[in-house]
Amino acid sequence: MEKIAIIDMGSNSIRFLVLEIADNRSYTLLYQEKETIRLGVGLAQSGYISADGIKRALNSLKMYRHIMSVMGVNKCLAVATAAVRSAKNGREFLETIKQETHIHMEVITGEREAYLGYLGVINTIRERDFLLFDLGGASIEMTLVRQGKPEKSISLPMGAVTLTERFQLQNTVHMDTLQACQKYIRKKLLTVPWLHNINIPLIGIGGTARTFAKMDQKATNYEFSKIHNYQLSLSRFTDIYEQVTTRTHANRKKIPGLSGDRVDIIVAGATVLKEVFALTASKEMIIGGCGLREGLFYEYYAQYFQLPSPQIENILEFSITNFIGTLGSAVHRIHCKQVTRLTLQLFDQLQPLHRYGRRARTLLMTAARLHDVGKTINFYNHARHSAFMIGHAPLYGLTHREQLIAGFIAGFHHGISRKTLIAYRYAQMADADDWIMIRKLSTLLALADASDLTYEQVVQDFSITIQDDIVVLVITSAPDSVHEAADYAMKQYIKQFKKEFHMSLVLIWK
Amino acid sequence: MEKIAIIDMGSNSIRFLVLEIADNRSYTLLYQEKETIRLGVGLAQSGYISADGIKRALNSLKMYRHIMSVMGVNKCLAVATAAVRSAKNGREFLETIKQETHIHMEVITGEREAYLGYLGVINTIRERDFLLFDLGGASIEMTLVRQGKPEKSISLPMGAVTLTERFQLQNTVHMDTLQACQKYIRKKLLTVPWLHNINIPLIGIGGTARTFAKMDQKATNYEFSKIHNYQLSLSRFTDIYEQVTTRTHANRKKIPGLSGDRVDIIVAGATVLKEVFALTASKEMIIGGCGLREGLFYEYYAQYFQLPSPQIENILEFSITNFIGTLGSAVHRIHCKQVTRLTLQLFDQLQPLHRYGRRARTLLMTAARLHDVGKTINFYNHARHSAFMIGHAPLYGLTHREQLIAGFIAGFHHGISRKTLIAYRYAQMADADDWIMIRKLSTLLALADASDLTYEQVVQDFSITIQDDIVVLVITSAPDSVHEAADYAMKQYIKQFKKEFHMSLVLIWK
Repeated sequence: MEKIAIIDMGSNSIRFLVLEIADNRSYTLLYQEKETIRLGVGLAQSGYISADGIKRALNSLKMYRHIMSVMGVNKCLAVATAAVRSAKNGREFLETIKQETHIHMEVITGEREAYLGYLGVINTIRERDFLLFDLGGASIEMTLVRQGKPEKSISLPMGAVTLTERFQLQNTVHMDTLQACQKYIRKKLLTVPWLHNINIPLIGIGGTARTFAKMDQKATNYEFSKIHNYQLSLSRFTDIYEQVTTRTHANRKKIPGLSGDRVDIIVAGATVLKEVFALTASKEMIIGGCGLREGLFYEYYAQYFQLPSPQIENILEFSITNFIGTLGSAVHRIHCKQVTRLTLQLFDQLQPLHRYGRRARTLLMTAARLHDVGKTINFYNHARHSAFMIGHAPLYGLTHREQLIAGFIAGFHHGISRKTLIAYRYAQMADADDWIMIRKLSTLLALADASDLTYEQVVQDFSITIQDDIVVLVITSAPDSVHEAADYAMKQYIKQFKKEFHMSLVLIWK
Repeated sequence: MEKIAIIDMGSNSIRFLVLEIADNRSYTLLYQEKETIRLGVGLAQSGYISADGIKRALNSLKMYRHIMSVMGVNKCLAVATAAVRSAKNGREFLETIKQETHIHMEVITGEREAYLGYLGVINTIRERDFLLFDLGGASIEMTLVRQGKPEKSISLPMGAVTLTERFQLQNTVHMDTLQACQKYIRKKLLTVPWLHNINIPLIGIGGTARTFAKMDQKATNYEFSKIHNYQLSLSRFTDIYEQVTTRTHANRKKIPGLSGDRVDIIVAGATVLKEVFALTASKEMIIGGCGLREGLFYEYYAQYFQLPSPQIENILEFSITNFIGTLGSAVHRIHCKQVTRLTLQLFDQLQPLHRYGRRARTLLMTAARLHDVGKTINFYNHARHSAFMIGHAPLYGLTHREQLIAGFIAGFHHGISRKTLIAYRYAQMADADDWIMIRKLSTLLALADASDLTYEQVVQDFSITIQDDIVVLVITSAPDSVHEAADYAMKQYIKQFKKEFHMSLVLIWK
């Protein structure tokens, strides 16, 4: 077992994470803390990190040092970014930190910052072609990602804090000031030729992007409260941008989702975002809750286990396996593997009937892999608890809606019932067509689960033929196995199958 | 680690459980299966268990034998009750079982059956004075419990299956048949003098009692879907009894909550319940989902760890500790202990202000102990996940409503927010007064949690004085500790405190 602390000291805030890697290779986030230390304040004018900034940073770091010893952390990865990078007293400041806290902090280059952000995103969001940007307090890193690989990358020394100071955007902003700021940003961005009209999704990390997600979720009464992988269209962005930049300071404060410590610097941040949207001609932005810190972690994790690359091949698969690994012994791994295999056999062979594609298959696979995780909460009614857990677990590679759908499918693995449906929160995040799919796919999962109710892997294979309105399921059972119980359990779903697929199901054992 | 199988072969059904006891002493239910084998069919007339019954039982037991080997069970506790006890071929039948499945099954006496049922109930339901009855297929066990101890106990050889056969109650029942049956039951019950007019709650275990809970939950649209510890009033019982006994067989089938394999024997079961209600003059029945099987388990558990008694002293405390023990490392035990201690200090010292009693204190303690369990699902938004988990975990000693309330309190441990409230399912199971309490108590939990946000146990003690409309909280901090972070975090709740308690909160560190 390994306990790792990660510290990311930026120009606006400092972040602290503690993660644990268990012997079975699964990792869990144990602790997270963020503080606004505003190292970047005054930096643009003086070239120095202020004494106040240094004091705030040291206070936080001393606390982290304590927490690390309390929690038994045996590895600390600590990095400092733009503010320390550009300050004349940056080196000296890190020396002070080392003396006073024994934390060895590394200043990373803009390129490395961009790369780590990329690693954090590529391992937690499914997109392959996008422009990643990390807008911090004193810099913006941008990375053009094509087919999952970073193609080009740049770090520009302008950020939400430094721009706010340069253009005095803290309070109510006048139109001409804003235009001057826009012009400045545009000029800087225009030096990067590969941004022009790329017209691919933006993925935004850092406080400004996250705050836009929060404001949009509040404005649209978004049911779910997750930021990571939230999608924001250009038109929704524009709407919020208008409010942020035209309201008086007093009214800006009232925008739901905009926290008090960001009221001052949001105008600058918003303006950068607007210019990035304009220059790239992008139509949407995905907000990433994971970035540099997670990138550092994945890099370490890959080194630790000597993986060929810190870029995870299949992020959904990896996060499912990881999640199961963090749970206790309530989930029977062999059973879940068997149920997943058989569920997908049913899905594939019934394809002419349901006509769902690869994405639906992925959701069904997710539901099957995780259908029993609810036993962690309580064996009784565990299908419903699985639905909840799947909907909220740290799974990557699914949209919010998809993740909930996978949960709803798993929730019906003992059959579709009104009681289970009533127990679902966020049911309205799936639409009518989704619900038709959920019901159909869950019927396949229920059949496969029933076929292994004795955990004995009685079934070797399913083979389906469809004749008129009859589905004949020929079941090859393992040699010397007894299949009465499985047969009985599976037959409980014949009625449901008929209802959902409008076909009769006949089981033949051989 | 120990894996234990429990088999309970009754006259109507056979039950199979697999539990795991981990090295940290926590136990989890891994598997559960029930089948209707109707060993009791024909027994009343012939005195023998039928060949069909024997075949059904052997089929189930062979399957269980397989599952045990698949799951690596190293201990099997198997008991047979009334049917085998009274059948002339009972011994011979157990011999056959031993030969064909290698399962050594023990016939237990009615007294031992009653005692094990008592153990299962006393360790999972908070009542101290009650009449426990276990109505099975071929017998009823009754135990009078006073101050938590079994005072008197009896087993009568009449059950839902045997009475159904004797009076031919399978189909539509005529009034005179029903009256004959009532008379028969009453006569048997009247032989037990200590039942008369005891006027204490009934606790019913076994299929008939559980089915009544299900029917009532359906009829009243009860939101929650838990049977164990469900309360059924005499008037609600009477209402359902009327329906069950007066409807034709075809219409009886349609009663929501009444499963197909119980339609035939429910009239007999209901009639026994009615006569027990009448004779005892009891006003309510609590339904127990735990009984003989759990009793066997607790007996084994107590032996295994050489506990002084199989009766657990504090069932809530035990089940909380057990639940935490089954979870992974996401919950930091020392932090939770500290937060619980400080939360209860606040509660006790603010008693003149909130005036809540011991029960509220217990709910707050539960919330504090478990406030971080949601990290098992996801670190992010874990307060909300804790609310869900606490509401559904196998905790004993709380009513359904109380358990949900403890969850709601924990869900607010990062402050009261609309978002969290929206995330709550079953919020309407708490009433307006409950919500006032939830908000107040959660404020205390949030303050205590904030005081230990660094996991360093900075705070040694809280000391409160109330002056006019000001609450002065003097905080003794540990020697050489740094309390700025805790102070800052606690101050975030001053506004909430004012809102909920209508008093100003002042923090003084010393």
